[in-house]
Amino acid sequence: MTDVARAAGVSIKTVSRVVNAEAPVHPGTAAKVHAAIERLGFRRNAGARNLRTGSGTGTLGLIVEDIGNPFYSELHRAIERAAATGGRHVLAASSEGDEERERDLALEFCARRVDGLVIIACGERHDYLAAELKAGTPVVFVDRPCGELDADTVLADDEGGAAMAVAHLARLGHREIGFLGDAPEIHTTRQRLLGFRRGCEEAGIDYDERLVRLGLRARGTETDLADVSAALRDTGAATAIVTGNNRITVAALRTLAAGGRRPELVGFDDFELADLLDPPVSVVASDLTALGTTAAQLLLARTRGDRFPPKKVVLPMRLIDRSHPLPREESAP
Amino acid sequence: MTDVARAAGVSIKTVSRVVNAEAPVHPGTAAKVHAAIERLGFRRNAGARNLRTGSGTGTLGLIVEDIGNPFYSELHRAIERAAATGGRHVLAASSEGDEERERDLALEFCARRVDGLVIIACGERHDYLAAELKAGTPVVFVDRPCGELDADTVLADDEGGAAMAVAHLARLGHREIGFLGDAPEIHTTRQRLLGFRRGCEEAGIDYDERLVRLGLRARGTETDLADVSAALRDTGAATAIVTGNNRITVAALRTLAAGGRRPELVGFDDFELADLLDPPVSVVASDLTALGTTAAQLLLARTRGDRFPPKKVVLPMRLIDRSHPLPREESAP
Repeated sequence: MTDVARAAGVSIKTVSRVVNAEAPVHPGTAAKVHAAIERLGFRRNAGARNLRTGSGTGTLGLIVEDIGNPFYSELHRAIERAAATGGRHVLAASSEGDEERERDLALEFCARRVDGLVIIACGERHDYLAAELKAGTPVVFVDRPCGELDADTVLADDEGGAAMAVAHLARLGHREIGFLGDAPEIHTTRQRLLGFRRGCEEAGIDYDERLVRLGLRARGTETDLADVSAALRDTGAATAIVTGNNRITVAALRTLAAGGRRPELVGFDDFELADLLDPPVSVVASDLTALGTTAAQLLLARTRGDRFPPKKVVLPMRLIDRSHPLPREESAP
Repeated sequence: MTDVARAAGVSIKTVSRVVNAEAPVHPGTAAKVHAAIERLGFRRNAGARNLRTGSGTGTLGLIVEDIGNPFYSELHRAIERAAATGGRHVLAASSEGDEERERDLALEFCARRVDGLVIIACGERHDYLAAELKAGTPVVFVDRPCGELDADTVLADDEGGAAMAVAHLARLGHREIGFLGDAPEIHTTRQRLLGFRRGCEEAGIDYDERLVRLGLRARGTETDLADVSAALRDTGAATAIVTGNNRITVAALRTLAAGGRRPELVGFDDFELADLLDPPVSVVASDLTALGTTAAQLLLARTRGDRFPPKKVVLPMRLIDRSHPLPREESAP
């Protein structure tokens, strides 16, 4: 650390803050420290040392619904990078949306003595983790809250995001707006529908449940595609659609590519190449880097023994507007 | 197992073959067994039982370069699904293309007593794993071979894929074909360049190294984009370009979206929405499901104690032709 401090031109305390994520450090200063570490080749040794002799095992566990979904793999990467600044590796696995599997994985991670767990919950029961939490394995829930457990949680403002999507479409002149959502058992689906209804209300649009379809799993199978296709037919009266997650958005685009009319879309969560499609697709998106980093930092703080009361952080979503106002305004009623 | 056998209408031996991946079973029969297991809710219990009392720990480790890259997250999913049929979870982490980090992760997985390791190698030295292999932790290398180690390997025919890409472009009438590749230290880059040269030769096209740029990392940063953009300018004389991986393809598309002329592209590895772009993008692609499944099955066989000599499997790549022959033929020289 002395060498790194000297190379970066900062104090040893600052290096320690950056390396162990002990306290916030000015980004410019942190960058200088990271550059010095990189130059001196210290990074991995710090990680390795932590692994073998530190208080913890040097590893965090991550459970996502489907690691093949870019939403989760980006979140995974963000968590991995933030954890690396605290010398921790992240091991990840998919629950495949199966509550039992989620539980098996969580308990397995605990049995392997990870220093902490990040869970994107598919289930709503997590009482089985109470003992682990008490025994000192911290758990942070991301993107979806936990059930029956007083644990740190980092969420996106799904309700606000959906309201924003509707407001955007209303500004473009749309009055017949549809919503295609994932399973209603999922917390984010319910929040997004709530926000959708609020958005309609605020725009003076009557909420029309004939334009709403839930339960679309859209995991990439042929059946899923047929379901989304049917949902689009059912809501054909809508001139604009809010799609409830990135998988539904892509399935909708694939369906709509075949037919003539494409309603204006606002998707939940950004996806690669959304901007290069013709026309581009607007989205309301979580900041996955912020989501992952906040979760990892909370967990790192817990692994250092911080005992603040469980935190609930809600991060704003933002509208990425890729609509073409002029031609759209012409075609809107 | 008796219940499953009865429900599926097959022998107990067949159920065992499917569940423990002991021997190949007719896909239709395997599907019947899986359906019966699903119906009876056995799947997770089998997994859980294996975890706690079986010979192994029930877990495989996976090291990829960057879990945020859809290529790796799809491969991860394929491995995860195949491993689940053998009652194994998969824990994954990214090497970030850093040889030391790859080693740290591999040794950490071994220290945690995973039943086996799947590695997409960024390094070329793996002698440190020899002791682990001897001690009974099997390792399978996927997509890129290992260095200095006699281990099972599952590769894609990168050379054949590149030759196929050039042949396709030559059929469309192109004679000035460029190649934008990743770092030449990476095995697949070298193989793809070899195939590119062979493709040129077979099509009677002079290999022109002014149209070739290597060392494009394209990990999504601004610098990477600038590098790809510069490489495209440098190879501006090419009427068609082979892009050496999915990240370079996307970076190239992003660069080319700004300017007027878009050379014909053939990308290495498929990517989501390639078919919905205007014009769509043709690719030569690995079958990631086959790659992941083959690797997982080899590893499962090893964990059962199979001692066949190390296998080297090379899977074919295929051309996904999304070109529009007519307009392209008109514009070709």
